[in-house]
Amino acid sequence: MTTAAHDPPALVGTSLEDVDTPALLLDLDVFERNLEALDAALAASSVRVRPHAKPHKCPDIARRQIARGAVGVCCQKVSEAEAFVRGGVTDILVTNQIVGAPKLKRLARLACAARIGVCVDDADNVEDLERAAAAAQVTIRVLVEVDVGGHRCGVAPGAPVVELAAKVAASPHLRFDGLQAYHGRAQHLRRHEERRAAIRAAVDAIQTTLVLLEARALRAEVVTGAGTGTVEFEAASGVYTEVQPGSYIFMDADYGRNLGPDGEAVRDFQQSLFVLTTVMSRARPGRVVLDAGLKAHSVDSGMPLVADVPGAVYTGASDEHGVVDLRGGGSLALGQKLRLIPGHCDPTVNMYDWLVCVRSGRVEEVWPIAARGAGY
Amino acid sequence: MTTAAHDPPALVGTSLEDVDTPALLLDLDVFERNLEALDAALAASSVRVRPHAKPHKCPDIARRQIARGAVGVCCQKVSEAEAFVRGGVTDILVTNQIVGAPKLKRLARLACAARIGVCVDDADNVEDLERAAAAAQVTIRVLVEVDVGGHRCGVAPGAPVVELAAKVAASPHLRFDGLQAYHGRAQHLRRHEERRAAIRAAVDAIQTTLVLLEARALRAEVVTGAGTGTVEFEAASGVYTEVQPGSYIFMDADYGRNLGPDGEAVRDFQQSLFVLTTVMSRARPGRVVLDAGLKAHSVDSGMPLVADVPGAVYTGASDEHGVVDLRGGGSLALGQKLRLIPGHCDPTVNMYDWLVCVRSGRVEEVWPIAARGAGY
Repeated sequence: MTTAAHDPPALVGTSLEDVDTPALLLDLDVFERNLEALDAALAASSVRVRPHAKPHKCPDIARRQIARGAVGVCCQKVSEAEAFVRGGVTDILVTNQIVGAPKLKRLARLACAARIGVCVDDADNVEDLERAAAAAQVTIRVLVEVDVGGHRCGVAPGAPVVELAAKVAASPHLRFDGLQAYHGRAQHLRRHEERRAAIRAAVDAIQTTLVLLEARALRAEVVTGAGTGTVEFEAASGVYTEVQPGSYIFMDADYGRNLGPDGEAVRDFQQSLFVLTTVMSRARPGRVVLDAGLKAHSVDSGMPLVADVPGAVYTGASDEHGVVDLRGGGSLALGQKLRLIPGHCDPTVNMYDWLVCVRSGRVEEVWPIAARGAGY
Repeated sequence: MTTAAHDPPALVGTSLEDVDTPALLLDLDVFERNLEALDAALAASSVRVRPHAKPHKCPDIARRQIARGAVGVCCQKVSEAEAFVRGGVTDILVTNQIVGAPKLKRLARLACAARIGVCVDDADNVEDLERAAAAAQVTIRVLVEVDVGGHRCGVAPGAPVVELAAKVAASPHLRFDGLQAYHGRAQHLRRHEERRAAIRAAVDAIQTTLVLLEARALRAEVVTGAGTGTVEFEAASGVYTEVQPGSYIFMDADYGRNLGPDGEAVRDFQQSLFVLTTVMSRARPGRVVLDAGLKAHSVDSGMPLVADVPGAVYTGASDEHGVVDLRGGGSLALGQKLRLIPGHCDPTVNMYDWLVCVRSGRVEEVWPIAARGAGY
């Protein structure tokens, strides 16, 4: 590798006000409370926890999750899984289809160094996967991905799952492990009842499918899915054996719009992730310009929220600028630093090389986002 | 630095169909034609060219632009400028306000190694800049940024510019060089006449301001601005001395929506930048899922376009997935690779460590995007 990542925007011991901007901040107190909150939320259930690593891409976080009892992590990409294996994680489920001989070869080689699972939704892909596993002389654990309502990847519940599972089970270097039943769309349904109903429908579809699998003596040891928005429902279902929430450690403005059973804001997990930014222009009255734009946070789920300054509204982003309207209140001085709550945590984190971890106004750790850009 | 950037998705000599995905591709033939097209477009004008480096963040491209006659490059951030100085560029204009003592110190130190200019729109910032330049014993060239209609940074035309210019000129370690008059918003006005009118208004405002400056014996040697959408107008204005187009080398789906004088699509510059992606799921009829989502291209200006497959429409992106609707035509096989035209080039390039440069179906060069993530 010949590109050089940039120096971190702060060193351990730096005071928060001296962190260079834009920087990706983690409030360690809140982060640790979120880890505890997930344990508490799942205490009544027997599900295993395999947090998704795609929001953080940071082995330092994965090791903390595993130290608290997680069985491993989920990844979305082979290169992401490689970064986590290098970071000391020994059990990874790639919750995605891996297509093409070069990627499958890398996946199979990874299974020499860690316990590796992967998802399938296509019979030809199962054959390619078997070929790669045979060549590397490894056994790969395989989950059949079921489309439980997200309508992205995955085969339809019922007979198509059984057919694919049988093909996996008949492949000498693959082990049929169970079902990937993740309902991505349900995570961001605003109303509690909508999310609950979506997962109830998913559970029904899985139960029907499990009966058909058992009739063919195909044992689904694992049924996995769930994200931060719905994990309470999968955990309580009695059908899911593993859950894979990811964003709960960070949260974001979009998750902040989810509502609880009485229409109240959901407060199970709190915002720990921020973009620290500086006011770089105050040339026009009633507004300021920040040094954090489209390259500092992702706007796919809307503009970021301004933390700590009531009345200030982030109204528009260009590549390196963010405009904040102050006509609703608040005041911001030139050079003042403030925190933004990103609209969507996952693609925001993927822009940064470093996570600056802060406690009591001081940088306590600086973690490399080792799998940043590991998209292939 | 302790993070490791990832291996490139291809080596020189790799055939296009073997490039790992998602990958950021540059069609070298088109890229070179775009370089020539800018020269041709400006042949009748005497403006200097200082291309903006923010879309490419790649010193390999900057060196090619300078070899063709560019006087240097523009950057938006100090860390970006540092990466280009390290990459051999000796003349950089930071087209932005730099705020805060640590950043100003770095900017001043950079002026020991290269010719450095910067923009101001605040009197206090001028004082901070003078202090940093004095401490480093350098002279920094300063442009007063004028708000010519973009309503982002910059002081209002006329007296506020003169006041700030006088303050710069009175600062022993600063040199008043002229005006930054970039109209960002005008680049993306769809109709030719709208863009022309916006720049006409900018030119009027600058002319009025120049008269006031001259009356105070303040000489604006440089008047700089322009982007890919309007450069023809600034170049022909007789007022601008320098232009700073950036996206012309790449183009994107958003620029592709600009119209010419007769309502036709503008074809001065062609699409050279693509995201190469693979079909990873075909489980549902009438659509496929690609391995390129929100971490592979920026959707701030809309979804990417599918190149090469008429009728195929990229309808939705999640973190690592893109859904393509094929009901309007086209067919795509599992594992097939295809090219996407990103919605917006700048924040897309900033996601990648490597630019894979292709000619005649083969990788000819692989350039590090050295200033990727250099946001501070």
